[in-house]
Amino acid sequence: MIDIDQQFAILEQRISGTWAEILDNSPLARSIRTGEFSKELYMIYMLETYHYTSHNARNQALAGVAHPENPVYMKFCFDHAADEAGHEMMALHDLRSLGHVDDDLTLPAPLPSTETLIAYLYWASKNGNPFRRLGYSFWAESSYQYINPLVGKVKEKLGLKDSQLTFFVAHSAIDEEHAKEVCNVIERVAKSQSDWDAIGETAEVSLRLTGRMLDEVHAEYQKLVAGLPSRYASVRDALFPTR
Amino acid sequence: MIDIDQQFAILEQRISGTWAEILDNSPLARSIRTGEFSKELYMIYMLETYHYTSHNARNQALAGVAHPENPVYMKFCFDHAADEAGHEMMALHDLRSLGHVDDDLTLPAPLPSTETLIAYLYWASKNGNPFRRLGYSFWAESSYQYINPLVGKVKEKLGLKDSQLTFFVAHSAIDEEHAKEVCNVIERVAKSQSDWDAIGETAEVSLRLTGRMLDEVHAEYQKLVAGLPSRYASVRDALFPTR
Amino acid sequence: MIDIDQQFAILEQRISGTWAEILDNSPLARSIRTGEFSKELYMIYMLETYHYTSHNARNQALAGVAHPENPVYMKFCFDHAADEAGHEMMALHDLRSLGHVDDDLTLPAPLPSTETLIAYLYWASKNGNPFRRLGYSFWAESSYQYINPLVGKVKEKLGLKDSQLTFFVAHSAIDEEHAKEVCNVIERVAKSQSDWDAIGETAEVSLRLTGRMLDEVHAEYQKLVAGLPSRYASVRDALFPTR
Amino acid sequence: MIDIDQQFAILEQRISGTWAEILDNSPLARSIRTGEFSKELYMIYMLETYHYTSHNARNQALAGVAHPENPVYMKFCFDHAADEAGHEMMALHDLRSLGHVDDDLTLPAPLPSTETLIAYLYWASKNGNPFRRLGYSFWAESSYQYINPLVGKVKEKLGLKDSQLTFFVAHSAIDEEHAKEVCNVIERVAKSQSDWDAIGETAEVSLRLTGRMLDEVHAEYQKLVAGLPSRYASVRDALFPTR
Repeated sequence: MIDIDQQFAILEQRISGTWAEILDNSPLARSIRTGEFSKELYMIYMLETYHYTSHNARNQALAGVAHPENPVYMKFCFDHAADEAGHEMMALHDLRSLGHVDDDLTLPAPLPSTETLIAYLYWASKNGNPFRRLGYSFWAESSYQYINPLVGKVKEKLGLKDSQLTFFVAHSAIDEEHAKEVCNVIERVAKSQSDWDAIGETAEVSLRLTGRMLDEVHAEYQKLVAGLPSRYASVRDALFPTR
Repeated sequence: MIDIDQQFAILEQRISGTWAEILDNSPLARSIRTGEFSKELYMIYMLETYHYTSHNARNQALAGVAHPENPVYMKFCFDHAADEAGHEMMALHDLRSLGHVDDDLTLPAPLPSTETLIAYLYWASKNGNPFRRLGYSFWAESSYQYINPLVGKVKEKLGLKDSQLTFFVAHSAIDEEHAKEVCNVIERVAKSQSDWDAIGETAEVSLRLTGRMLDEVHAEYQKLVAGLPSRYASVRDALFPTR
Repeated sequence: MIDIDQQFAILEQRISGTWAEILDNSPLARSIRTGEFSKELYMIYMLETYHYTSHNARNQALAGVAHPENPVYMKFCFDHAADEAGHEMMALHDLRSLGHVDDDLTLPAPLPSTETLIAYLYWASKNGNPFRRLGYSFWAESSYQYINPLVGKVKEKLGLKDSQLTFFVAHSAIDEEHAKEVCNVIERVAKSQSDWDAIGETAEVSLRLTGRMLDEVHAEYQKLVAGLPSRYASVRDALFPTR
Repeated sequence: MIDIDQQFAILEQRISGTWAEILDNSPLARSIRTGEFSKELYMIYMLETYHYTSHNARNQALAGVAHPENPVYMKFCFDHAADEAGHEMMALHDLRSLGHVDDDLTLPAPLPSTETLIAYLYWASKNGNPFRRLGYSFWAESSYQYINPLVGKVKEKLGLKDSQLTFFVAHSAIDEEHAKEVCNVIERVAKSQSDWDAIGETAEVSLRLTGRMLDEVHAEYQKLVAGLPSRYASVRDALFPTR
């Protein structure tokens, strides 16, 4: 027999352990804590956030398309996908609010680590244990406790208003509700130990891939501020024209 | 400039003309009107309805996965998919209510014409004009005006209660709301003549393929009652054991 | 135990019976036999042939992607897909040879019945019995015995050279080899009665959908020559400018 | 104008630089060089190789399904997929040759890093620049110069015969031919700088993901020999029953 509370505790621990490892070793987290960063870092981060977020509703829906056996789960996937649709617009809005963009902004392609995260999420949505994409939702919808301190530092240092942080502020309110729904549906659909293991593994893997994205964001930031060739040069120039 | 009212009128006319053609020539409709049918016909019809309905939420969601450009449309696709999820259970319920099935009922595979309809709906959801699957929803969600007279005859002749007609009764109430939403979203997303044409063509094609399914349902019914080999024999025997 | 020779005989009979039904009732076949047609008919037919042929290599490959269990079958699917790649160019070449097209020819979208055939072939390649797409190859690769008499009539009446019939002439030579390979692989992979049944059903269904395409080609031809609005008017005008 | 020789030189350099980085830092490579490993390491490596290899033909074919614009490329994809089909059987054969497996061997699921590689290859095959999967083939088909020294050490230390190294020995002969074909097709299809950049990025990313797989293989090996819980314990016990 599965003890649901115990399984959630294991899952929670796995996630908090992974977060601790990521935040301890992340050059991005370190540079935010020490204040050694500028709005270019936030720009790059928001761009990559825009990219992976723009796929979340779609791979969430795909999980339902691929796994029709359990109607409760399928309905959740579609409902949740509807809720996630368009959230990337918040990331884009916040990005644009950093500068003076009048109209179109040509966005650089996602970084390899962002694309790897996206690829993994589509794969995990379609293949393997039907419920494992819930592992991604599980940590992503309740990541604000880990991220908020950093967001606070960014806000302060860059002098951002709440209206420039819609992705985090508005989103975190929405996601609180989602986090509950995710736990709810996990409780209803995860029946076997292998369901829980699959949810746990996909949670950890997708979080680690997100960690790698943070690393690469920071590396790109360093290239950009060092004047090295960077795929972000043109966005930076559009957002922050130096006159 | 597109005149929306005119476009809806053209669409409406295309659908009502196609329905008229189908109902005039359908051996199934004829046998219902003349009362020359038994519960085996309803059984076969409900089985095929179960099959294609079980794919509707999924191909609806796929339309959103494949067409992320318009967030309004994407969100509609996922929302609508969530609403459609599990509707096949009503068809299955009504089917089982016809007989004395205690437990599992092994369902025969869909008929070729049912499978062709399913295949077309997945294809149209993923390929071609992004909005064209709305053409299917457009007629399907408001098909009750065309079907209800026949359903009434079936109910009367077979002595069915409302509780045995959940797919039609409950569903038709739900779908009234859906029909409005579908018109709404068509109005918001269909911008060009080619959008409207694509919606119209997909509407007509999917309705004609449904008509072919009705023809094949009737042909299978005739085979079954004539004692010819039929993929429905085992369900019939399970539902209606002759003692 | 499966008697392979008997199964092939049943399959062969099912196909020849279906061909007979199609050719007996096909307005297109009738008008070719009676000579009541012009090059516009061949133009429309070749255009639709171009459309479905351009998907054959892809849905053939998809059958292998979707069904990796049997390496012999998977390898066949990819090999055969490689062989089919680009065959639509022969249809396009023959179409262009009818007129004076100097450069680009804007092709109208496939007819609904052509698209339905395409949709069904993708669906059958990905879903259901893994081997059933072989049913399509089975009849398609050996269809020349049924079609050649009609092609001969078309050639004679329109005064076409062999170099204008590459799709049929070259293709039929290639396909003879393919037909053998298809039988070979069916023999190697079809183990159960349900394999053979699935191959047979997909063969018949895809042939009937092709028959419907022929019907619609003829109906479009009649619309075109009657001066009614037609999606072929612009190609006709490009190919056969009347001076 | 693109200078093809220069582009190949850049690509070559990118790959050799990435290989150098991986091999310099890889705990797996180090332990092979120092001889600190046992057949369990090779077992785990071969298992993961089996997993990703079993997807290579399929994602290669999918690249052709998704990118029909260039018939030369599409044909290459299908041809190459046919050549790759079943190669995982060599990995499985070599794995089984290590021990006394009489019949079925239940394989553990792929490691997260292996699954991430697989996910990325499907994604890159279907999305983004049509030709970029060639980047993976480019380094994978000519990786033997980098790997052979290590394979030699493994062979010597574990006392393996050539017949137990079919994946490497036979494969490397086959792949020499493939490597030429890959260069050939890159030359024919890569027209723009962005084609070359996409091929280069996908090459580097897929190689780095392979490097991560090597890291995780080594980490799992350490867990296994340390007696920690491991998904490889049951295969080890089946292959190497200690009596």
